[in-house]
Amino acid sequence: MYAIGVDIGGMSIKVGLVSSEGKIVEQNRVKTAKTADECIKNIVNQINDLLLNHKLTIDDLSGIGIGCPGAVTSETGVVDFLPNLGWEKVKLVDELKKDFNTNIKISNDANVATLAEVIYGCAKDYNDCVMFTLGTGVGGGIVIDKKLVEGGYSRGAELGHTTLIFGGEPCSCGRSGCVECYCSATALIRQTKTAMLNDRNSKMWEYAKGDLANVDGKTAFECSKLGDNTANLVVENYVAYLSESIINMLNVFRPQAFIIGGGISAQGEYLLDKIKAYCEKFEYGYKNAPKTDILIASLGNDAGIIGAAALVK
Amino acid sequence: MYAIGVDIGGMSIKVGLVSSEGKIVEQNRVKTAKTADECIKNIVNQINDLLLNHKLTIDDLSGIGIGCPGAVTSETGVVDFLPNLGWEKVKLVDELKKDFNTNIKISNDANVATLAEVIYGCAKDYNDCVMFTLGTGVGGGIVIDKKLVEGGYSRGAELGHTTLIFGGEPCSCGRSGCVECYCSATALIRQTKTAMLNDRNSKMWEYAKGDLANVDGKTAFECSKLGDNTANLVVENYVAYLSESIINMLNVFRPQAFIIGGGISAQGEYLLDKIKAYCEKFEYGYKNAPKTDILIASLGNDAGIIGAAALVK
Repeated sequence: MYAIGVDIGGMSIKVGLVSSEGKIVEQNRVKTAKTADECIKNIVNQINDLLLNHKLTIDDLSGIGIGCPGAVTSETGVVDFLPNLGWEKVKLVDELKKDFNTNIKISNDANVATLAEVIYGCAKDYNDCVMFTLGTGVGGGIVIDKKLVEGGYSRGAELGHTTLIFGGEPCSCGRSGCVECYCSATALIRQTKTAMLNDRNSKMWEYAKGDLANVDGKTAFECSKLGDNTANLVVENYVAYLSESIINMLNVFRPQAFIIGGGISAQGEYLLDKIKAYCEKFEYGYKNAPKTDILIASLGNDAGIIGAAALVK
Repeated sequence: MYAIGVDIGGMSIKVGLVSSEGKIVEQNRVKTAKTADECIKNIVNQINDLLLNHKLTIDDLSGIGIGCPGAVTSETGVVDFLPNLGWEKVKLVDELKKDFNTNIKISNDANVATLAEVIYGCAKDYNDCVMFTLGTGVGGGIVIDKKLVEGGYSRGAELGHTTLIFGGEPCSCGRSGCVECYCSATALIRQTKTAMLNDRNSKMWEYAKGDLANVDGKTAFECSKLGDNTANLVVENYVAYLSESIINMLNVFRPQAFIIGGGISAQGEYLLDKIKAYCEKFEYGYKNAPKTDILIASLGNDAGIIGAAALVK
């Protein structure tokens, strides 16, 4: 049976028709509109387009799943707070039910990405997994016994908003020193720029064509691979921040696997080997602790659509 | 129906006969022996004494529950690692089964204390709770839907071993900057002594009879209540460490209630009011976050026996 997966992002909204094996049969994408009402209209049209293309009716689907950034109450289907899009208290599920009489579920985007990886992706052989998505921010997802653990009021699993440095960098959440402030792509870019300003001879300047505006989440990693010392220090420091944040989650959940996703995970084995070495050195957080397998997410940008569809599988 | 609760501690082993309402009918205590074998013999004798006193046989019990510090695998009933007592791979449940043909379960001491508070204590009106026990170390417990969440291999919930200050104070676990290094009674005593050495005029010197050896977890709190500025700074700083650590757990679990237990919780309302004010100021960790009730544990030292018995309720 097919399901529809909706992936709401700051730039675009992607809607996909997903098979029960987690394959995207077809997907479309529209630019994220300025208001929630417009976005909802677009989602309805996108879904209808997919159904039409595949000669399906809504009754041929197991349902519609939605992954959405920000604070989402999955029980009520309401997006409580999505500051990037200016959404507050948007009754997304109720609105879609006006057009589609089917099972409709919603969850936070990082939760949905984790579910996708555990059911169909890199962690499909594991039951208990925790994930960081390392992008603009740091999202978190928890799956126990193949089921999503969203926390009370479906408002937990904000793993990026745990402290790494008490009194450290100011965080978008209103506190300071959160994991997100040190492990997000945004943070890595900040760390890279600071290091470049302190070393005008670093290869990173050439890589960035002499302009800090060109620095991205790859700059330090790529120049570290070229043997640049300053880039290497940025990477080693970032790996320490990230590994300590991972070990914290191992001590809380002791999952079978920990998944690294989001843009930074594109570094693959290069990043993974360094994190594994760090975690090994600190005995995965505790003397005699059972080891947790550390994995790189395998579904990339499709995890949003696939995981959303998995909500109604 | 009655159950037996066994509370293994570094100083003594307490065994209690507990009613199904969570009341301790009778308890006894022996000094913790030097070897695991001696401890097991003592526990067997203590249980037999209680049964004899109350004219009960083992068949009159719902079972025997054990709370034990250190790393415990509850599935196998093995104490993997208890450095304070020098225990390693002690098959405690199997050993007790040789004498008692009944349901025997074991869990970590902080887990068991949390279970006691959620079933019989301060949090009995809540289903989802997280707890810190603030003693020599910082223990953690997680209860979701009135059930203990021990993490994978029953080796998670080590909430005291999450980072508060990256690269901070060395921790007994081998890492550095853990919550335990700033929020345990041990840490508070260290913080108090440091402040006293920087202020020879603090009232804390009088309270400690001029001797740093007399400083305990109450020194700063009691002198703060007397209006001593330095003591007040120690308390405010400790409250910030503790509150940030609590907010981290709210962001991960978003529980209905968070429980503060262990020796430091004896400060009651004085401590609670300060923590609540701090959490309120930071919106319980996230804009528009559902509020979590913060509670002081009510069962005190009995939580160990009562919670252990609750494992076999």
